[in-house]
Amino acid sequence: MDLFDAIAGRYSYRGPFLDASVPREHLQRVVEAALEAPTGCNSQSTTFVIIDDPAVVKAIGQMSTMKAMQTAKALIACVVNETPVPTFAGMSFEVEDCSAAVENMLLAITGLGYASVWIDGWLRRDGRAGKIGEMLKLPTTKTIRVILPVGVPAEKGAQPAKKPFAERAWYNTYDA
Amino acid sequence: MDLFDAIAGRYSYRGPFLDASVPREHLQRVVEAALEAPTGCNSQSTTFVIIDDPAVVKAIGQMSTMKAMQTAKALIACVVNETPVPTFAGMSFEVEDCSAAVENMLLAITGLGYASVWIDGWLRRDGRAGKIGEMLKLPTTKTIRVILPVGVPAEKGAQPAKKPFAERAWYNTYDA
Repeated sequence: MDLFDAIAGRYSYRGPFLDASVPREHLQRVVEAALEAPTGCNSQSTTFVIIDDPAVVKAIGQMSTMKAMQTAKALIACVVNETPVPTFAGMSFEVEDCSAAVENMLLAITGLGYASVWIDGWLRRDGRAGKIGEMLKLPTTKTIRVILPVGVPAEKGAQPAKKPFAERAWYNTYDA
Repeated sequence: MDLFDAIAGRYSYRGPFLDASVPREHLQRVVEAALEAPTGCNSQSTTFVIIDDPAVVKAIGQMSTMKAMQTAKALIACVVNETPVPTFAGMSFEVEDCSAAVENMLLAITGLGYASVWIDGWLRRDGRAGKIGEMLKLPTTKTIRVILPVGVPAEKGAQPAKKPFAERAWYNTYDA
């Protein structure tokens, strides 16, 4: 798929997935895209657990009321340090690293004909990141920052309405 | 350019740029890719100032010792709220929003034959974000989180060595 088509065609999909499996070859290609994302000082701080054991996928999916989580064929958990590690002048870029990796994965998922949605804040409520971390046997120093459900969408989706260029971008002067 | 070629071909370029201009048509296409990135609750929190006034590009570039900044033909400043605004359950996703937009732009820059590097922590030292913000007439509620120099690379570049898949990704169990 063309790069710009993938960028324009990516959308947050919260609906049901078809009962069509996602082969490991594709899941690996998606995560390889994540590994190729930039990281602050090349720290490669984010790691990934690909969940395709149907029992575990189902157990995690049922923690959510979202169809995409409940019917996902696979999940990709993005793991960061519980306490961010500074890499440059006392600053940590773990959130940036993880986010760039997630965006690469969302584009790769789009490019391979699947859909997904960036699940983030949900993990930080009601101890969900900790519960899922236990299922995946994370060390206590690590936590799941983002999780992506993956599958073939059963319904059509699209990006939500976005502000036009002139309301979010200007030349040389802010809000010119 | 193919999506996966762009993901694999993107690299952080810190060397000199050729004396070849970057037309506004291309700068706009790059920033349009940023506008298409996902944002938490579709808040579209990041805004962008494209700097192509040669005097301003030069003044900002000379604040840096990096060749890519000193010889950039254009700069793209990513603007966020000085105090992040919560959008979901008291959480803000402005860093995530900005990072996903930056990754889309780095891929678009690669796809159009240019190079760049994600400049981040540098802005937060020695009051640089504030000084550049004054040049761009940012309101005091806003700050520049990331800046991207853009140009045609004069030297060859490549991604740094990365850990293999097996050291950063596993199936179903962390560090399996």
